[in-house]
Amino acid sequence: MNLRLIGKTLGAVWIFEALAMALSALVSLIYRESSGVYFLYTIALLVVMGVPLFLLKADNKVFYIRDGFATVAFVWVTVSLFGALPFFLSGEIASFEDALFESISGFTTTGASILTDVEAMSHGMLFWRSFSHWIGGMGVLVLALALLPSLGAKSVYLMQAESPGPQPGKLVPKIAQSARILYIMYIALTLVQVVLLLIAGMPLFDALIHAFGTAGTGGFSSRALSVGAYDNVWIEVIITVFMALFGINFTVYFLMLRRKFDSAAKNQELWFYIGIIAFVTALIIPGIAPLYGNSIGEGLRHSSFQVSSIITTTGYATTDFNLWPMYCKVLLMALMISGACAGSTAGGVKCVRLLLLLKAFKRELRRILHPRASSYVTMDGVIVKDEVMSGVTAFFFAYVMFIIGATLLVSFDGFDFMTTFSAVLSAIGNVGPGFGLVGPMGSFAVFSPFSKVVLSVCMLAGRLEIFPLLVLVIPTYWRRGNQ
Amino acid sequence: MNLRLIGKTLGAVWIFEALAMALSALVSLIYRESSGVYFLYTIALLVVMGVPLFLLKADNKVFYIRDGFATVAFVWVTVSLFGALPFFLSGEIASFEDALFESISGFTTTGASILTDVEAMSHGMLFWRSFSHWIGGMGVLVLALALLPSLGAKSVYLMQAESPGPQPGKLVPKIAQSARILYIMYIALTLVQVVLLLIAGMPLFDALIHAFGTAGTGGFSSRALSVGAYDNVWIEVIITVFMALFGINFTVYFLMLRRKFDSAAKNQELWFYIGIIAFVTALIIPGIAPLYGNSIGEGLRHSSFQVSSIITTTGYATTDFNLWPMYCKVLLMALMISGACAGSTAGGVKCVRLLLLLKAFKRELRRILHPRASSYVTMDGVIVKDEVMSGVTAFFFAYVMFIIGATLLVSFDGFDFMTTFSAVLSAIGNVGPGFGLVGPMGSFAVFSPFSKVVLSVCMLAGRLEIFPLLVLVIPTYWRRGNQ
Repeated sequence: MNLRLIGKTLGAVWIFEALAMALSALVSLIYRESSGVYFLYTIALLVVMGVPLFLLKADNKVFYIRDGFATVAFVWVTVSLFGALPFFLSGEIASFEDALFESISGFTTTGASILTDVEAMSHGMLFWRSFSHWIGGMGVLVLALALLPSLGAKSVYLMQAESPGPQPGKLVPKIAQSARILYIMYIALTLVQVVLLLIAGMPLFDALIHAFGTAGTGGFSSRALSVGAYDNVWIEVIITVFMALFGINFTVYFLMLRRKFDSAAKNQELWFYIGIIAFVTALIIPGIAPLYGNSIGEGLRHSSFQVSSIITTTGYATTDFNLWPMYCKVLLMALMISGACAGSTAGGVKCVRLLLLLKAFKRELRRILHPRASSYVTMDGVIVKDEVMSGVTAFFFAYVMFIIGATLLVSFDGFDFMTTFSAVLSAIGNVGPGFGLVGPMGSFAVFSPFSKVVLSVCMLAGRLEIFPLLVLVIPTYWRRGNQ
Repeated sequence: MNLRLIGKTLGAVWIFEALAMALSALVSLIYRESSGVYFLYTIALLVVMGVPLFLLKADNKVFYIRDGFATVAFVWVTVSLFGALPFFLSGEIASFEDALFESISGFTTTGASILTDVEAMSHGMLFWRSFSHWIGGMGVLVLALALLPSLGAKSVYLMQAESPGPQPGKLVPKIAQSARILYIMYIALTLVQVVLLLIAGMPLFDALIHAFGTAGTGGFSSRALSVGAYDNVWIEVIITVFMALFGINFTVYFLMLRRKFDSAAKNQELWFYIGIIAFVTALIIPGIAPLYGNSIGEGLRHSSFQVSSIITTTGYATTDFNLWPMYCKVLLMALMISGACAGSTAGGVKCVRLLLLLKAFKRELRRILHPRASSYVTMDGVIVKDEVMSGVTAFFFAYVMFIIGATLLVSFDGFDFMTTFSAVLSAIGNVGPGFGLVGPMGSFAVFSPFSKVVLSVCMLAGRLEIFPLLVLVIPTYWRRGNQ
């Protein structure tokens, strides 16, 4: 293992976290909140620990796969730990395990909260909580790569391990430049959303919070009633549309910027994703219209918002969808599993994987009828390699096993099945709310410390797509001489 | 398509169904039940329709894969339809859709019942209901092949389509002989169980009913409280052991009969299966002991029975496990998904598939660390072919999609999530009872006709392992010139 380079990367990431926290400290200062001082303590700690590591000399600039996975795992765990400190030190979250849960929920863009009274939090802490969504969405390491090209000379595996999807795409040959383009598009889209929210009448602070939550597909709100608190159709429309936009593979935007509209339109996953949104939105309307004065318009308003929120694994709500008919809840749970597009900030299995699995299934049916005919799976007109397919099927199996295993562990708390199962689906899919006690108006505070740990692991596993965490626990990983 | 041979096979199967029904008519006669006359009507119909079909001349004795799948689908649907007639004609089940549900539940060895008062049924009908388990367990077509060797000259695909598991094994080169050996072992094991139940003090009629239900891993009982009604430890022990035995791949017994004990012991799936049973039984005991006077012995008694019943997808109960702690229910639901061994009479995904998927997942982790190392999956010391692996992964994906889709459709009834979800898991896994309203003391009578149809399709899809039903609906199947 290239320990020096791993250490150097870790140091760089911690320094960036300190910078991100400085922004939150600034917010505390603006609102004259004394809790801002705890950001300064944490920043000091991050700098003291990060700078020496960053100054390590690493002559060997080659990142091997194993290094990439180890770095990603270390980075996400430590960044979450440091991120929890301000919550805990300030006493705004009383126990460290809860602060850590909230921090992991932030960085993994889950948005599940143990808070029971979010409006009692200080502005600085609310800002930090939501800003962690924004950083976690595009990726902490991708940020480091974007800003420190020297770091990522040959670190394609770093990006591969952190970016979601079966075929993480470099936009341009150089990693650092790809990372920079990604962040520029990300910042631009976020800014457009902030401006639109301001125009729709949202205060600046709230606009930032909700734009961060939308961009990272996180879902933390500054209001207990989430987006529903504003009861403003324009705000809801803006957030509905932007959630859906942030669920699209960023490669599509890149192609559009380069005026390659044909290539962008050929993206099969995109149409699959749009199709699901339209279909499920339409299916839910008749079921919920009776709850909203039999108005189709109101049905569409709430259906489209919630569908966009859940498929992109954001988790904002305009209404308590816990009260919807059972079939609507089952549809939303199915969306929690599917998630949006690979290469976006969304969680879940990802549409492209489901599409590949569907295609592989159709191939299997064909093969039964024509055993000797050669057949392969194609995507966007290109033959999909066997390694990619077996990676996808292994991921899907692991995802289902994770759900079953975590449901079992959380079920020791003895809550009803809907609460238990949907909490797990929501955590591993990085959604946020579930149903039952953890519905959009509920809180994860009800769970035991043990279940919170299990759900935290689910959130990390979901965000990092399982493999980076599991690679570390297989024996051959630690055998000497491996690369 | 070889329509003549398909017709001939269908005719043969209907004649066998008539013979099986004659046995039920005999039971009615013994108990002097007038409802026996409806068996005679149905037998007449089966003979009138079956004999001309069976007398068709089919010079071309080659069964192509497509023929095999079509035959299996036709056979199972028609056999269930005819099987429902006595229930409906006699008025013992008032609506035809309920009678059909009960019949499909019988033949697919599910054991889910719409009856609310099973003890009000006549002996003849109860016998028929349970006998359908016994026939459906080993397979209607396998029976036809065993008794009519001329039919199955080259019909390996028939057996392949009906027998569970990714690699259905012929025991000996000749299909007809393999089928006969399977049925001889099946009859022998069933008879041993009947004798043991008689010794333990069960009346003959009840012993037959419960032996049929155990052998086919079906689960219909003649008592409302299922096996719990007898409150007899010996009966419970016998049924626990025999359920577990019928969940083992029959190839293992064949190897043991041939004194190839080494080969039998090398069967990895067997050890995996035994391991799960032991592990889950132990895990449940501490959770349920408080419900049974804090007795570990009573805990073991109920835990082992229920685990054996659910993993083999039989569905007998000695206690209302609906009242067990949530984690025990989650464990049982996981067993509903896993099922027992391939090549047994059990349903579910099957242990061997889970084992293969686990191995493929481990290979994926290895591949991440050593991208250039060649790696393959082995089972019982043999390399597993890529086609088998992709068949297994496609099956698993289809199974999960079936669960999600059926849960959605059944959720329109508006029952709680546990009832809805467990009813689907139970139906597709051919288990029988679920949780909530469809718990071991509940009934599927609560569902709407639409949901009953959905669950019936799930039962058939589970028993035939999805592909035979789906092959029929893909367009290229019906294109001319296909073989």
